[in-house]
Amino acid sequence: VSYLPKLKFQVKEFEKWNLLHFEIENPITPNEIHTISPPKLHGTKGVILSGRGPIWLYCYLAHYYHPTKFIATYDPREGGAVVVESHTPEFKIGDIIKIKE
Amino acid sequence: VSYLPKLKFQVKEFEKWNLLHFEIENPITPNEIHTISPPKLHGTKGVILSGRGPIWLYCYLAHYYHPTKFIATYDPREGGAVVVESHTPEFKIGDIIKIKE
Repeated sequence: VSYLPKLKFQVKEFEKWNLLHFEIENPITPNEIHTISPPKLHGTKGVILSGRGPIWLYCYLAHYYHPTKFIATYDPREGGAVVVESHTPEFKIGDIIKIKE
Repeated sequence: VSYLPKLKFQVKEFEKWNLLHFEIENPITPNEIHTISPPKLHGTKGVILSGRGPIWLYCYLAHYYHPTKFIATYDPREGGAVVVESHTPEFKIGDIIKIKE
């Protein structure tokens, strides 16, 4: 069986976080979750998740990167990325991080 | 200042999980995340999150209940709740749990 990639990941490194953008190239179902291989990211920085995808995928990725400094999810309605978990007082849950490209 | 409740929680206990349904009664912004008080739930069972809300709220709640047996997020498109993290081999990441009311 040939392997059809479901998700494409792109990483942009910033001073205090990695911006992880994903694109769903082929429809992905929950039972295929193990076929995706999120990139290794430095735990010394936070991770900002960005991309159009279902809630379960976001929650999975947030948990996947749990050992990193903090996790935020990009939400255009909030004008930035919302911190949803954190291990550093510098970024608190509920903070909004404006991402400057 | 009078306190305006933002989220209403409802818990239904099942044999192996608690179904936590939330409703956003008043628009909630990320900086108000600390005003919500999710109910205490037994860690010996899983938690299924359900409700219409933003991704950051789901990720926050998933992390909040991280110490429980497993976390799943209800997704009507998948016909059930998708397991997004688990500490038990009985429920694996990517499994779909059909909720019978």
